[in-house]
Amino acid sequence: MFIYKTKIKLHETDAAGLLFFSNQFKIVHDAYETLLKKIGFGFAKLIRQKSYFLPIVHAEADYKAPLFVDEEITVQVTIESVGITSFIFAYQIFNEKKKLVGTARTVHVTMDKKTQKKVPLPKDMRAAITKLQK
Amino acid sequence: MFIYKTKIKLHETDAAGLLFFSNQFKIVHDAYETLLKKIGFGFAKLIRQKSYFLPIVHAEADYKAPLFVDEEITVQVTIESVGITSFIFAYQIFNEKKKLVGTARTVHVTMDKKTQKKVPLPKDMRAAITKLQK
Amino acid sequence: MFIYKTKIKLHETDAAGLLFFSNQFKIVHDAYETLLKKIGFGFAKLIRQKSYFLPIVHAEADYKAPLFVDEEITVQVTIESVGITSFIFAYQIFNEKKKLVGTARTVHVTMDKKTQKKVPLPKDMRAAITKLQK
Amino acid sequence: MFIYKTKIKLHETDAAGLLFFSNQFKIVHDAYETLLKKIGFGFAKLIRQKSYFLPIVHAEADYKAPLFVDEEITVQVTIESVGITSFIFAYQIFNEKKKLVGTARTVHVTMDKKTQKKVPLPKDMRAAITKLQK
Repeated sequence: MFIYKTKIKLHETDAAGLLFFSNQFKIVHDAYETLLKKIGFGFAKLIRQKSYFLPIVHAEADYKAPLFVDEEITVQVTIESVGITSFIFAYQIFNEKKKLVGTARTVHVTMDKKTQKKVPLPKDMRAAITKLQK
Repeated sequence: MFIYKTKIKLHETDAAGLLFFSNQFKIVHDAYETLLKKIGFGFAKLIRQKSYFLPIVHAEADYKAPLFVDEEITVQVTIESVGITSFIFAYQIFNEKKKLVGTARTVHVTMDKKTQKKVPLPKDMRAAITKLQK
Repeated sequence: MFIYKTKIKLHETDAAGLLFFSNQFKIVHDAYETLLKKIGFGFAKLIRQKSYFLPIVHAEADYKAPLFVDEEITVQVTIESVGITSFIFAYQIFNEKKKLVGTARTVHVTMDKKTQKKVPLPKDMRAAITKLQK
Repeated sequence: MFIYKTKIKLHETDAAGLLFFSNQFKIVHDAYETLLKKIGFGFAKLIRQKSYFLPIVHAEADYKAPLFVDEEITVQVTIESVGITSFIFAYQIFNEKKKLVGTARTVHVTMDKKTQKKVPLPKDMRAAITKLQK
């Protein structure tokens, strides 16, 4: 399990007074980026040096309690599954009172940059991700 | 069915070269806002004049083909279901070649602004939404 | 002068109830993108086919009146100046009552993608831009 | 001087490969929000408890060097001036190599929420801000 901490920014809220729903996806992706960088596969490297990319083919989120500007939140990231050409990350978001306020899942596939076709997840990245599962 | 047309803006893409996944949710929400305004329940009115709001409690999306900057897209909005205290909108996104490039669903509940509890969808809004279903 | 029309979206506002200031820059850039596409230099082409790019080296905005969700706005784009290796675009934003609610300016330079050095604005693009000045 | 550290996220970049210019304004505002919270005037309090708000009436930025995804940046916030009904914040952004990559300024006025007219900056907030100037 990987932990990411942040707070709700003003520009992530909307005129209804709360976090705008799509920004919960931004926040969990920030957590995912931080995780990838920590295990040696940051986006700068993925974009510049790798022959594959990891597009999201499915994303979903549940919203269980409102989030206001300035609230400190904690995102717990878990690897739900790792397949041959895809993997699934799951996210749980907790507010300052440790209440679960939202969840999300992102399904990624490994795609060759040139052919735009699915390819097996490279061994080194697979090893780095599965290590986190334990 | 309601049709919303827009194009992919530079700030909706990311350094991997394509639409950033969470911006697909922004775009379908733009379509939903436009629809609400057209049927007389625009967000300005909802926020300022109504006793209820319509938070999203679940959202999901599929990504079937990449979207680049400048691409003209068409969002088809359909009302999937209307319950007592909730409703579901579904979205299909087509590119210039009329290919389905993505889908999304948003589940909304009707919540009283003061009590923060679920309330039945008001009759006038229910009538306006169900009219669109036909 | 080039005219771009749009409306304020919920995700462009914040919990203080109005347009978040940086989104005024997004909106004027949307106008700029639309203009570039119209004169044959859309971002898809600039990114994929051209040897130069047009980074913004300075941006500024004034905010004269609040903008709420759902408000229809009109952006008037003018070319303030065109130099050898740079150009300046100016923007005026009007609300539904034709009141000037904001202004902005963006200063762009022409930069070679490979050398990351300034290069003269290519003739064809210069011609297309200066045509708009008249 | 107040220091804010963050990193460039994927959704802050665009298909040209770099930080999208308006997101530099978002980032400096994140720094400003963090500063305000630290001195006891966080946005949650400002929005819910105060009779005034602090709209930005002018913003400007310079872009001196490109910023890529994953880059760690440091924002130095200084109070440029504090007037009767307004104040100016200035921002300097440094990359990992301590190179100045961008600057920004935001001019704020103190406005009464009800009358929408300028009011003097309240004493307690003035004291908290001027303390930072020293």
